[in-house]
Formats: sequence, C-alpha cells, structure tokens
Amino acid sequence: MEAFSDGVIAILITIMVLELHKPSGPHFSDLRATYPSLLAYILSFVFLGIYWNNHHHLLMTVRKVTGAMLWANLALLFCLSLFPFATAWMSENGFATDTVASYAIVLTLAAMSFTSLQIVIVRSHGTDTRLREALGRDLKAKLSFGSYLAAIPLAFVFRWLSIAIFIGVAATWFIPDRRLQSYVESTTDSSVADD
Amino acid sequence: MEAFSDGVIAILITIMVLELHKPSGPHFSDLRATYPSLLAYILSFVFLGIYWNNHHHLLMTVRKVTGAMLWANLALLFCLSLFPFATAWMSENGFATDTVASYAIVLTLAAMSFTSLQIVIVRSHGTDTRLREALGRDLKAKLSFGSYLAAIPLAFVFRWLSIAIFIGVAATWFIPDRRLQSYVESTTDSSVADD
Amino acid sequence: MEAFSDGVIAILITIMVLELHKPSGPHFSDLRATYPSLLAYILSFVFLGIYWNNHHHLLMTVRKVTGAMLWANLALLFCLSLFPFATAWMSENGFATDTVASYAIVLTLAAMSFTSLQIVIVRSHGTDTRLREALGRDLKAKLSFGSYLAAIPLAFVFRWLSIAIFIGVAATWFIPDRRLQSYVESTTDSSVADD
Amino acid sequence: MEAFSDGVIAILITIMVLELHKPSGPHFSDLRATYPSLLAYILSFVFLGIYWNNHHHLLMTVRKVTGAMLWANLALLFCLSLFPFATAWMSENGFATDTVASYAIVLTLAAMSFTSLQIVIVRSHGTDTRLREALGRDLKAKLSFGSYLAAIPLAFVFRWLSIAIFIGVAATWFIPDRRLQSYVESTTDSSVADD
Repeated sequence: MEAFSDGVIAILITIMVLELHKPSGPHFSDLRATYPSLLAYILSFVFLGIYWNNHHHLLMTVRKVTGAMLWANLALLFCLSLFPFATAWMSENGFATDTVASYAIVLTLAAMSFTSLQIVIVRSHGTDTRLREALGRDLKAKLSFGSYLAAIPLAFVFRWLSIAIFIGVAATWFIPDRRLQSYVESTTDSSVADD
Repeated sequence: MEAFSDGVIAILITIMVLELHKPSGPHFSDLRATYPSLLAYILSFVFLGIYWNNHHHLLMTVRKVTGAMLWANLALLFCLSLFPFATAWMSENGFATDTVASYAIVLTLAAMSFTSLQIVIVRSHGTDTRLREALGRDLKAKLSFGSYLAAIPLAFVFRWLSIAIFIGVAATWFIPDRRLQSYVESTTDSSVADD
Repeated sequence: MEAFSDGVIAILITIMVLELHKPSGPHFSDLRATYPSLLAYILSFVFLGIYWNNHHHLLMTVRKVTGAMLWANLALLFCLSLFPFATAWMSENGFATDTVASYAIVLTLAAMSFTSLQIVIVRSHGTDTRLREALGRDLKAKLSFGSYLAAIPLAFVFRWLSIAIFIGVAATWFIPDRRLQSYVESTTDSSVADD
Repeated sequence: MEAFSDGVIAILITIMVLELHKPSGPHFSDLRATYPSLLAYILSFVFLGIYWNNHHHLLMTVRKVTGAMLWANLALLFCLSLFPFATAWMSENGFATDTVASYAIVLTLAAMSFTSLQIVIVRSHGTDTRLREALGRDLKAKLSFGSYLAAIPLAFVFRWLSIAIFIGVAATWFIPDRRLQSYVESTTDSSVADD
C-alpha cells in the first residue's frame, strides 16, 4: 500500500511541473509571467511534501492492511490528485477569488480524507488505545483543518488573506508528526513485550 | 512483477488528471463545463483502484513467476492503459453513444485480461486445487464481466443505462476479493506443513 | 538500480498513451484516424515490455553494482526513452519512410545498449565464465540486432517490410530469456558451494 | 525516503521526453529543428542521472531518517524538478543568453541543495567524524559548484562557454562518488565492531 501511495504522490508532485507556464520569449523579463504559476507550484509542492511525510509516518503504525484502509487511502490519493488541477486553475487566472476558494476546498477535502484514514487505522488497533492517545491532542491537525475551512469564505472577502493562511499552515507543518514518530519508536522498542 | 505493475497503475491513475479540462475562465460557473470530465475521472479512478486492489491480492497467491504470467500481466496493463484514452474520449464528447460503448469495450477487455492472468496463475499451482476452488464460485467477477459486455449494446439503446451499470458494478467491488484474502491467509498459515 | 529502472520503464510504457491521437469526433468512424497511432503504441508497448522482462532477468545475475553498470544502465534507459518520441513521429506521419527508418535506428541503439550492459555485467563476474557461457550462444539477440539494422535501409526500399520485421522480432521475444532464467536458478541453488 | 526520491527522479528524467519538439514533417530534414531540444535533453538526462547516482550513494550512509533530512531531501527534489522547465525554455529559444544563465542558476541551486542534504546527514552522525572526513576533500563538488556559479555571468559574455562548462562538469561526474562508496563499504564491513 505504501509503495503504491508513494508512487502516486511522487507522480502528482512531479507532473505539476508540466503545468508551469512556458515563458513566451527568451528574456528574463518574459519569466515574470511565470511567477504566479511558480509560486503556486512551490505551495502545492510543499503541501504534497507534507502529506507524503505525514502519510509515511501514519502508515508505519499500520499492523494489518484492511479493505477499509485501502479505500480510505484511495480517497486520500484522489483528493491529492486534484492538487495539479486546482493549482493550474488558480495560477492561470492570477489567483482569482473563485480559484483561491476552490484551492481551499481541495485542501479541506484532503485534510478530511487524511483524518478518515487516521480514524480507520486507529479503529483497526481495536482495544489498544495507545495510538488513539498519541493522536488525541491532535491540535495542529484540527487548527489546519479549521484554517483551510475558514479560507474558503475568506477568499470572497480578501483572497490574499486566504493565500497567507495557506502559506502559514504549510510553515507549521515543516516538521513531521512527532507524536506518530515517537509512537512508532515506542512500539518498535516494546514489540516483543507487547505482542 | 508487482512493483512494476504498481508503478504502471499508479501512473495511469495519476495521468488521467492531466486530461481534466481546464475551465476557460476564473469563475465557479466556468467549472460547470468540467463536470463531465470530473465524473468520468472519478469513475475511472475507482475502476483502476479496484484493479489495483484485486491485482495486489491476486499476485500474493503467486508462488513462482513464469514467462506466461509476465505476458498475461503485460496484457492486463495494456488494457488498463487504454482507460485514460477511453475516459478522455467519453468525457470530451458529452458521454456520446459510441464513446460510452467504447468505454464498455475497454472494461470488457480489462476484465478478460484479468481473468486470463488468474487462469495462468491457477494453472501454475498444478495439482494443488485449493486456489482454483477458492476462486471457483467467482460469481461477482462473472456478473461484472456480463454487465460490461451487456453495456456495449445497451449504450446504443439508452447510454445512461450503460453508465448506471458502470457505477453499479464499481460499487459492488468496493471491497477487495475476500476469497483471495482468505486463501492467502490460509496458505501463509499452513505453508510450513504444505511445502 | 532495478527499482529506478523499473520506474523509468513503467513511466515510458505509460506516457506513450498520452501521445495517442484523440479522435476528432464522437463516432466510431472517427476512431479510424487513431488506428496508426494505436498500432504503433501496441508495438512500442510490446518492445518496452520485452526490454523490461529481459532487463529484469539480466539484473538478477548482478552480484555487485559497479559504476560502469550504473552508466551502461542509464545509457539503455536513455535509448528506451526515445521510444515515445519515435513512436509518435512514426504514427503521426502515417509510417512514412524516414520515420520508419528512425524507429529502426532507435531499436538498433536500444539493442546495442542492452548488449553493452550485458558485457559490463559479464565482465564484473571476472574469471567465473558460466554467465558468459550461458549467454554465449546468444543467437536470438544477434538475429534481432541484425534484423533491426537491416530494417533501417529496408525502410527506404519497402517500408512495410521493415514494419513486418519489427512485428516478427517482437513475436520471437514473447518468452523471457530462458538462458538467464536457468543461470539464475543454477547459481541460486549452488551459491553456497560456489562463493 | 529513497523509494520516493527514486520515483520523483525517474519521473523527472522521463517526462522531459514529453517536451521534445515533434518534427513538423515526416522527413529526416525535419528532425534538424529538434537537434537543440535533443541535445538539451541529453544534457539534462545526464545531470539527473548524476544526481540519482550520487543521491543513491549518499542515502546509503544514512543511519536514521530525521525530519531535517526529509525536508532537505524535498528541497533537492524541488530544485531537480526545475530541470524540465529550464531545459525546455533553453532549447525552445535556441540556447539564448538568459535561458542559458537560468539553466546555470538551476544547476547552482541543485548543487546547493545537494550540499545541504549532505551537511544534514553528516550532522546526524554526531561525533562519529568518519563520514565528515570521507567527504572532507570534496574537491570535485566544490569545483562543480564554482563552475555552475561562474557559468551564470559567463552566459552573458559568451553563452557557448557556459554550455561547454555544463558538458565538461557532466563528464567529470561520470563515475559515482568513490569516497562515499568506500565509506559505505568500510562501515558495512565494520558495522558489528562499531555499533
């Protein structure tokens, strides 16, 4: 499951570069027209990188792949696959109001599907509640989700504020999920004693 | 063999997003023109997801890769590689009769090549008939194949019925093949005793 | 090295489908214009499938990856990466003389680079001449190489003969290289005794 | 981390072929217009091949993946993902001055991010200074970096000199990093004694 997901995210993160506007002429001044798409590309590259990191750590807590996990995972990959589309639409239209709102919607959907996958994996652990506890104070994820959700209506008020939210949330995720990291380490260390 | 197949399916499932129509303008109303291609994309994403899941479970029953398997596998990958083409043709022409029929033909070919791969793998098990028995009552696969086949002529009568069949069959496959899952578990458990 | 090569070949075999001509209309009769590109696509899909199979078997004989191998491998991947280009050029111009000759040139270059990789790997085995002997009577490879080479000038005489050669050679390769397969098995069985 | 990076580099090295100019006609003479893009493609293919090789050897020295490494790695992949864009811009404009300078800038950024990743990995080894020593006399990397940097202003003086620098540096990297190779071998051999 991880190899397939890694493959899909690697392709998504890479094909966005195909959407970068080619400058119309051979001069540096012609590059100016590509700045919006370059900035949108960097933003989406970072978001997909964040999802790859957190997805990687989350999958390391999986003990047994179930059918529900496979489909929750596919739902997440589907939401992530909308990034190139949303990125291209936003950058090609100069970060217009509706396109910024739709980018926020894609971010919200991706956050929802990541949470769903997390819930499915936590449930598969049954009565062992340590992963649930490790994820319990999931403040950063909740704040991110709230920020994405708030960025949808905010785009209609002041769209640059929504974009500032995107950048701000991305910045807070620049470190992988320490809770999951430490959970993986604790179970790896004590796996003989537990199982 | 599985890494290569996973790679090909991951690429196929992802490059379809490159075919999504870019809206012509920056407003939500411009998105309306992309609804057909978005719906067709979701449908094909789910079908390729189904094939990836079932292919994953089928390959876990393989004991030794033979030349015949490699070619049956490539034939399946070839049929799956026609999905982006058939999806784009269907969605770009508003689900026109001939394009819906051709999508049903691609589904039929993919189902045939998956069955071929299954037969080749069953044969490689020789006199051990447990996998054959596990697959014996392959009712869901037979009904799916019959439905795809029926959807070809039905497209000329009432094309939306064919599309309803596509969606209905996809819904029945949302769970991975339990027969293969339990076969894999049973052989894994008893592998020491058998070999 | 194998994972990277598998990835590159998987992408090459898949992106060719992006080059398939979209039919201009929604009717089956509009598909007729796509027959040349569909046929060229099938041919290249089979050739890349052959290279993937044989490459897979060849890499299984590698004991230690050397720098020379990495570069011989990259040279092979480069030649294979010209397939989508040559396929598209040939099919878009109705299998015109020069395009068929260039397709034969790409096939010749790929066969040469595969042979180079084989030589580098055989040399790395040092004085152990069993792999060399196993590959010694490499008649099929020599005949294929000769056929590709002959297909270059033949394209200027009668281009359909060159295409018939492509199809004929592809047909003879539909089984993986039994010599390498049996070598791998023999070394795996006797590896304790040898090393 | 390596599988994901390998996937991204494999996709980057392959999608550049999608940017190759299709000849406008079916004759060999029509190929002439594709020479610039073919040459630029070969150059970028070799550079990405060099990065893949060196990245592969560098990651083999990693003992424990840290968050800083993941982000340094993503930064490197981002810089490498600009190659198709810079390659296409340079070749489509006949190696114009500004485009050659921007290609040199992308090479400089990639070299900087590779060095950053190297520093992060060396630091993670803590007081064990052998990797640092092994990399200490990193003359080739320093000369390459200096050459890329020098090629930026040189492009405005005489752009073909910058291109000659690109080709020359690529030639010196045709062998993987022996220092890292021997470090990996030495730690593998003595891992029981050390840890």
